[in-house]
Amino acid sequence: MNMLNYETLKTKDPQNLRQIIRDGQYDAHTAGLAKGYLQANIVILPRIYALDFMRFCQRNPKPCPLVAVSDTGDPYLTTAGHDIDIRTDIPIYNIYRDGVLDEERGDISPFWNDEMITFALGCSFTFEHALLKAGIDVWHISNNKTVPMYKTSLKTVPAGPFSGATVVSMRMIPENRVDEVHSICRQFPLAHGSPLHVGDPAEIGISDLAHPDWGDAVPSLPGHLPVFWACGVTPQAAIQNAKLPLCITHKPGHMLITNIPDDAEVPIIKA
Amino acid sequence: MNMLNYETLKTKDPQNLRQIIRDGQYDAHTAGLAKGYLQANIVILPRIYALDFMRFCQRNPKPCPLVAVSDTGDPYLTTAGHDIDIRTDIPIYNIYRDGVLDEERGDISPFWNDEMITFALGCSFTFEHALLKAGIDVWHISNNKTVPMYKTSLKTVPAGPFSGATVVSMRMIPENRVDEVHSICRQFPLAHGSPLHVGDPAEIGISDLAHPDWGDAVPSLPGHLPVFWACGVTPQAAIQNAKLPLCITHKPGHMLITNIPDDAEVPIIKA
Repeated sequence: MNMLNYETLKTKDPQNLRQIIRDGQYDAHTAGLAKGYLQANIVILPRIYALDFMRFCQRNPKPCPLVAVSDTGDPYLTTAGHDIDIRTDIPIYNIYRDGVLDEERGDISPFWNDEMITFALGCSFTFEHALLKAGIDVWHISNNKTVPMYKTSLKTVPAGPFSGATVVSMRMIPENRVDEVHSICRQFPLAHGSPLHVGDPAEIGISDLAHPDWGDAVPSLPGHLPVFWACGVTPQAAIQNAKLPLCITHKPGHMLITNIPDDAEVPIIKA
Repeated sequence: MNMLNYETLKTKDPQNLRQIIRDGQYDAHTAGLAKGYLQANIVILPRIYALDFMRFCQRNPKPCPLVAVSDTGDPYLTTAGHDIDIRTDIPIYNIYRDGVLDEERGDISPFWNDEMITFALGCSFTFEHALLKAGIDVWHISNNKTVPMYKTSLKTVPAGPFSGATVVSMRMIPENRVDEVHSICRQFPLAHGSPLHVGDPAEIGISDLAHPDWGDAVPSLPGHLPVFWACGVTPQAAIQNAKLPLCITHKPGHMLITNIPDDAEVPIIKA
């Protein structure tokens, strides 16, 4: 199988990209692909946990903005795009067993059964795209790094077995543009919405900005403040706490590319 | 029991109002009460239908904007306010049996059991309040009538047994302010968001504006266009279609008064 490189994919539309991923021709991160379309964090789990997980999302809409939920046992995510087969359309999946990340795979067809349900949650690519359009530089993008992510002392609102810390991502923003960033991001409730915190990291339980729990550190920039957003890694932390026998997610950064426009008011594609 | 009148209640806060309703001292509509706080449509049903109903809400966020979901069997709606007892805190409940409205009650304690789950959905009072603040007159409010509501030819996205027509409410808006109304309402995704349709009612399957399916007709006003919003009666129509053995809702207009601020980005009160 010939693998396609990232640059080749930049002009492809969502359906083409999913086909390429489905065919096993691309297995890397999806940042910057299919600009203008919503990308999504994915959680797949058995029906018996689904109602509690959906309540967890409803109670924690900033880290877990629900944009699609499949029918029970249906591998197609019909409201997020035409012909999305969730068993094959993500570059890399994480397989959690008993709350522990057990393996990575490019295809989860062997794990699918009549009891599985897929949840898709909005992601930060959407508001980052809007910030760039407003002329606000985002350091980790300009420098081709992964956004820094931190566990905080901010607790999620629990639901059934799901609970734990809110995970945040951090971007350095010029002090005189923080209010504008807030207004821009508030327009995207399906992509984590406005920041949770601005300024002192210690106030939300982060002891050292230079050592993120995931991703790459960002240098302090003169005239900038650290700004923190709820992050789509939060549900993965909740899944680890819940110790489900089996749960499947995307590998962070390797998202589902949907057909939902980035600026959609409602994340529903009608048949 | 002495009943309190509407005027007496206008200065009360949400918790006081719920206590008065719980004590059986008020059983009329809640429009205009607790200004600045979100009021909610309520649907209560057994656990076996809850996941499908929650998917129905996720797939139809304009008519069914979810603002709170209780734990299974828990009559308290903790994320929507302190000490909300859903068995007693609504002025009048509608009891549906096999999809048919069977009776009205002021207290549903006898029907509550360990399998019941409460769903709260945002309502149009929120955006009407914002329109009034912007100086846009709303005829049915100024004239102390009920907003006209219509079944349309716009289908909801089904989930399990839940399906059916989208119900809309209609307000006459000055032609030169329709865009502004759109922008204002888009800021309230938890209260039906922006209008679904402007202008010709026939385009969405409404044959006669003068004869609404619910509520009171509004006269044509010169220089105004009819503007249609997704309506919280939509889930009641879906419940009738689903023919559940038992389902409880509020009586239209007789809403749950929450402690969630009207303009909250996230409808969650933390303990």
